Amino acid sequence: MTDLLTPAAKASGDDGASVDVAALGRALLGRWADIRLQARELAGMPELHKVEGLTHTEHRERAFKQLGILVEQNGVHRAFPSRLGGSDDHGGNVSGFEELVTADPSVQIKAGVQWGLFGSAVMHLGSQEHQDKWLPGIMSLEIPGCFAMTEIGHGSDVASIATTATYDPATEEFVINTPFRAAWKEFIGNAAVDGLAAVVFAQLVTRGVNHGVHAFYVELRDPDTKEFLPGVGGIDDNIKGGLNGIDNGRLHFANVRIPRTNLLNRYGDVAVDGSYSSPIASPGRRFFTMLGTLVQGRVSLDGAAVAASKVALKIAIQYATERRQFNAASDTEEVVLLDYQRHQRRLLPRLATTYAAAFAHEQLLQKFDDVFSGAHDTDEDRQDLETLAAAFKSLSTWHALDTLQECREACGGAGFMVENRFTSLRADLDVYATFEGDNTVLLQLVAKRLLADYSKEFRNLDFGVLARFVVGQAADLTWHRTGLRAVAQFVADSGSAQKSAKALKDEDTQHEMLADRVQTMVAEVATALKGAAKMPKEKGAEIFNEHQNELIETARAHAELLQWEAFTAALRGITDPGTHKVLTRLRDLFGLTLIEKHLDWYLMNGRISMQRARTLSPYINRVLAKLRPHALDLVDAFGYGPEHLRATIATGIERERQDEAREYYRTLRASKDAPVDEKVLLQKAKAHGRK
Amino acid sequence: MTDLLTPAAKASGDDGASVDVAALGRALLGRWADIRLQARELAGMPELHKVEGLTHTEHRERAFKQLGILVEQNGVHRAFPSRLGGSDDHGGNVSGFEELVTADPSVQIKAGVQWGLFGSAVMHLGSQEHQDKWLPGIMSLEIPGCFAMTEIGHGSDVASIATTATYDPATEEFVINTPFRAAWKEFIGNAAVDGLAAVVFAQLVTRGVNHGVHAFYVELRDPDTKEFLPGVGGIDDNIKGGLNGIDNGRLHFANVRIPRTNLLNRYGDVAVDGSYSSPIASPGRRFFTMLGTLVQGRVSLDGAAVAASKVALKIAIQYATERRQFNAASDTEEVVLLDYQRHQRRLLPRLATTYAAAFAHEQLLQKFDDVFSGAHDTDEDRQDLETLAAAFKSLSTWHALDTLQECREACGGAGFMVENRFTSLRADLDVYATFEGDNTVLLQLVAKRLLADYSKEFRNLDFGVLARFVVGQAADLTWHRTGLRAVAQFVADSGSAQKSAKALKDEDTQHEMLADRVQTMVAEVATALKGAAKMPKEKGAEIFNEHQNELIETARAHAELLQWEAFTAALRGITDPGTHKVLTRLRDLFGLTLIEKHLDWYLMNGRISMQRARTLSPYINRVLAKLRPHALDLVDAFGYGPEHLRATIATGIERERQDEAREYYRTLRASKDAPVDEKVLLQKAKAHGRK
Repeated sequence: MTDLLTPAAKASGDDGASVDVAALGRALLGRWADIRLQARELAGMPELHKVEGLTHTEHRERAFKQLGILVEQNGVHRAFPSRLGGSDDHGGNVSGFEELVTADPSVQIKAGVQWGLFGSAVMHLGSQEHQDKWLPGIMSLEIPGCFAMTEIGHGSDVASIATTATYDPATEEFVINTPFRAAWKEFIGNAAVDGLAAVVFAQLVTRGVNHGVHAFYVELRDPDTKEFLPGVGGIDDNIKGGLNGIDNGRLHFANVRIPRTNLLNRYGDVAVDGSYSSPIASPGRRFFTMLGTLVQGRVSLDGAAVAASKVALKIAIQYATERRQFNAASDTEEVVLLDYQRHQRRLLPRLATTYAAAFAHEQLLQKFDDVFSGAHDTDEDRQDLETLAAAFKSLSTWHALDTLQECREACGGAGFMVENRFTSLRADLDVYATFEGDNTVLLQLVAKRLLADYSKEFRNLDFGVLARFVVGQAADLTWHRTGLRAVAQFVADSGSAQKSAKALKDEDTQHEMLADRVQTMVAEVATALKGAAKMPKEKGAEIFNEHQNELIETARAHAELLQWEAFTAALRGITDPGTHKVLTRLRDLFGLTLIEKHLDWYLMNGRISMQRARTLSPYINRVLAKLRPHALDLVDAFGYGPEHLRATIATGIERERQDEAREYYRTLRASKDAPVDEKVLLQKAKAHGRK
Repeated sequence: MTDLLTPAAKASGDDGASVDVAALGRALLGRWADIRLQARELAGMPELHKVEGLTHTEHRERAFKQLGILVEQNGVHRAFPSRLGGSDDHGGNVSGFEELVTADPSVQIKAGVQWGLFGSAVMHLGSQEHQDKWLPGIMSLEIPGCFAMTEIGHGSDVASIATTATYDPATEEFVINTPFRAAWKEFIGNAAVDGLAAVVFAQLVTRGVNHGVHAFYVELRDPDTKEFLPGVGGIDDNIKGGLNGIDNGRLHFANVRIPRTNLLNRYGDVAVDGSYSSPIASPGRRFFTMLGTLVQGRVSLDGAAVAASKVALKIAIQYATERRQFNAASDTEEVVLLDYQRHQRRLLPRLATTYAAAFAHEQLLQKFDDVFSGAHDTDEDRQDLETLAAAFKSLSTWHALDTLQECREACGGAGFMVENRFTSLRADLDVYATFEGDNTVLLQLVAKRLLADYSKEFRNLDFGVLARFVVGQAADLTWHRTGLRAVAQFVADSGSAQKSAKALKDEDTQHEMLADRVQTMVAEVATALKGAAKMPKEKGAEIFNEHQNELIETARAHAELLQWEAFTAALRGITDPGTHKVLTRLRDLFGLTLIEKHLDWYLMNGRISMQRARTLSPYINRVLAKLRPHALDLVDAFGYGPEHLRATIATGIERERQDEAREYYRTLRASKDAPVDEKVLLQKAKAHGRK
């Protein structure tokens, strides 16, 4: 691959720094490096790769077989208990899972449905008895299953689901029922074809009391005939915008009876006589605890989105260092795309954001492992984990879509060919922005946390879009720490003397500016909302709604700050001076483009002078030019090989074609058979006429 | 459909205004209303609709048959000469063509390849003899054909193509040759399967002189066997990110001989003895003239992108007025999505932009018809048309992608289902951003025009990314008028007394602010580039490149101004007072969101005070709330019926399901069988404990 580097990319930049690609690559692999490398080996296997152009039926069949390969290769059981053949390794499990996105996002998400959702629910919500009974079959794929939570009528608002599980003491059974069409379970993976069983979420009713959402193990299909069991029904969601290897569908239940013991009873149980008990007294907190396993999905999607962004940028930047277009600077040699300022503007800030998101993800993953391994598993830790996952998953999944699209356009028509991966990955990742928590809803969850950290007033917040979804979180717990920890350090001298944007190169200044913005936005919106939580419901909701946009932008600002902090923290671990220098510049690019993106805010709030603001964009352009020689190194450090990229334009074919063309013209010129250009003749005639 | 309106949407808004949907619908149909309505009837035919989930091979077969239906239905010949069965109606032809996007973008673009490119090239570049010989077969689809211009190696840089057509006086033939792989024609529609012939663009060489790019009629395949003729070859581009009904492919020619008379010789001819002649002396201008027919493609894509945006917004806004989520304001009734501020922020500014783009497109279409009908066909008119088409096509195709994506996300998981259209349309329209002129290149063409209007210095600009592509335009013509006509009216009092954003409601103020920005940006970049055009090529290119980003942003600002002006001009034609009021507010929303988008510029250039800037966002939120009751009327005015929308979520099914659920709960509550909520019991117990 090395000999494909253009001279410009080979150069070490005007500052003499150069990147130690191998060392940077190791740093990017993070704490679970070995597992990541194993998973990449797996993802490189041709039999796991997406085949384009299959019908959705063929794609589903292939994906199901591929899940079998994952089992054979022992690639998906790391999170399960050691006594059942797993390794109780939660962080490692997610690390490996994330890497599967390069093989086929359908394989990844179908594996996520089977083991990350269905299996995890049995593991986390069930007793040891439940685990022993069902996990072996789930792990081996003998029992393909569903995670039947979402209903048509309520999407992200899980607390409002309408499916009921009513206890009948006469038969010691629960009766599972979907009373109307809006209560049908929808978008359920494995529901249309493969699922033999499901964990069904339903309102648990016993002795006339609704104890809220609980999870039940329900058999769906006869394992032999694959027909639905009596009372169970469903329809196929058919073709989707992507992820067509997964058989999503709807499920409905007409008074389906299951044994009492099929209630996954870790956080709530019903005795034979119908009496309810729970180790968690508060229904809100109980709901939150049961939904806590969902965070794993968000953590995984964050990592998968980062991986897809890396693949896209490697392909597009490789191509941009080879592809030439328009002869700007010479009569015979055209300019390499990445030497155009606009092309740098399109790709390099996205590269910087990808690095920031990658380092932020690694922090999130460690936090996740701390909680799920039990190493640090306080309520506070869980709250922090929820907030971080919501913040990072939203930003990174949107970033992946944006990056895939920009890369696709930056490669022109070639970018549109499915063989170059962008369009296919983009179609599959599209839904990452709205599943496992709609990004817009998740950012409101983050905003809620920021408000609660800011003022006790909002701690018991219980309405609006912030309501149902987070009711458990709001009801019982005191939150603090992650939210505004950094902001207190804000130093109020950001309007200081230097007038050029160069002053923004200073790390502390960047931090101050980003943190000050978060702090100010939180304070402003909290002030605007003051008292709203105690008003009559309708009035309070109205006031909240009038500030909904601000709330979401505040959450985004907070998430950006956390990404910047993660990038900056990661710099400390980079020992090679050249790599450190280049990566610091990349971090500066990230910080500066954030400030540029929100420049209106900085200006209208008096945080930056007009004079300095005007120098920002040209300064960023200079930073881009300085980073350009390192661009290829920075994407090579992602460590994806041809078996992961699988893009024709990343193979060096463009350079080969150009060499062939160049050689042709060289020979032609030498032969003196080359036709003369009419324009040249006209110029000569003109010159002759002037004499 | 009317009874699906929510009470909120039925209301006439707090200002008492209401929209005359029918009259507004007629205004939107524009000058070729009858043809549009005919074309919509055609596009509503089930046999022309996209069937999802076909393999690309099946989709190609279906699309080819669908082209036959278009011929039968007399839907695609309007531009051709009356003597051959057409109607010499260029504006009408494009109007009808645009509407086909709602049936299947593949059908639209395949029709565009056959008649808009291949047929148009024969018509515009050939003699009457050529027309009589080939057009009947092209019109009837007896000769499916290709427009073989783009080469792998040169994409948008058409002047640099490497295919040669060398005249051999011994046999009175041209020899068509692709000397190396980079010269292969690429992304050519109809090339992989259906094309029997092609208009091939090649460097015309005779008597040792290269006279530049000319077009040649070349037979590709045996009409009976469908095998390539000797010397012709190609490969299938296979699956793409979308538009898979079109058989794109590569073509190559190994010294293929064609009769001398197959040169489409309207703008350049070779006599039997090999002598070259042309009615256009300048090679640059000749090139530009021959490429002039390409503008039709850009005009059409602009219109198609607007149509797709309309369809998307109708579906998403219909759903947003029915779908309820989270009970913010009441215990039993959830809030309709479109009542959420953020949802308004996501959809309504895009609705305003769609109106602006629609009115701008109508202006472009009339300009196009003026030029192609010969009514106003000066060089200046052609230049204006080129500039407008480049400006509007770039903005509207990007806008369509952005709108389709936002609508898809705003509908959550339902938006991801292919049956709801967004993902399918988005995949197909993706390439609109880079074909028929890459948007980034087109905006540079606009920037070039702005510079030339600003100063003579840039009139002969001939390098950089602005070079090859526009060389003909730069070389011979004096440009003026469209570029900066409005800017001279700038009144320098924009920093006037009023301090609230409400002052921006004033039409003249909006115009001043938008126009001032364009003028200032042009002047600044022109100053920065001063002298660069006369510097040594390499140095000049470097300076240009250092300002490439600014150039592109300047062009975008100009295009936005033109859209705003088109919207404002269209208001004059709206006579119904209620409609005028609502549409004026929508135009304000468009203007205000443009100012908000570029607020950093206005602030750092002292065009708006910090104080006023801070009031802008809340003011826009109030405008959104005022427009919200009219949202459904504004999308209904687009006039697309269920046969065009074909989206399950736009059928009222969501409302039906909710009514069913609501009725269930009403009955349950009345029956007193309803389970009591555990939370309610706890609250009661708590209250009891307090007593």
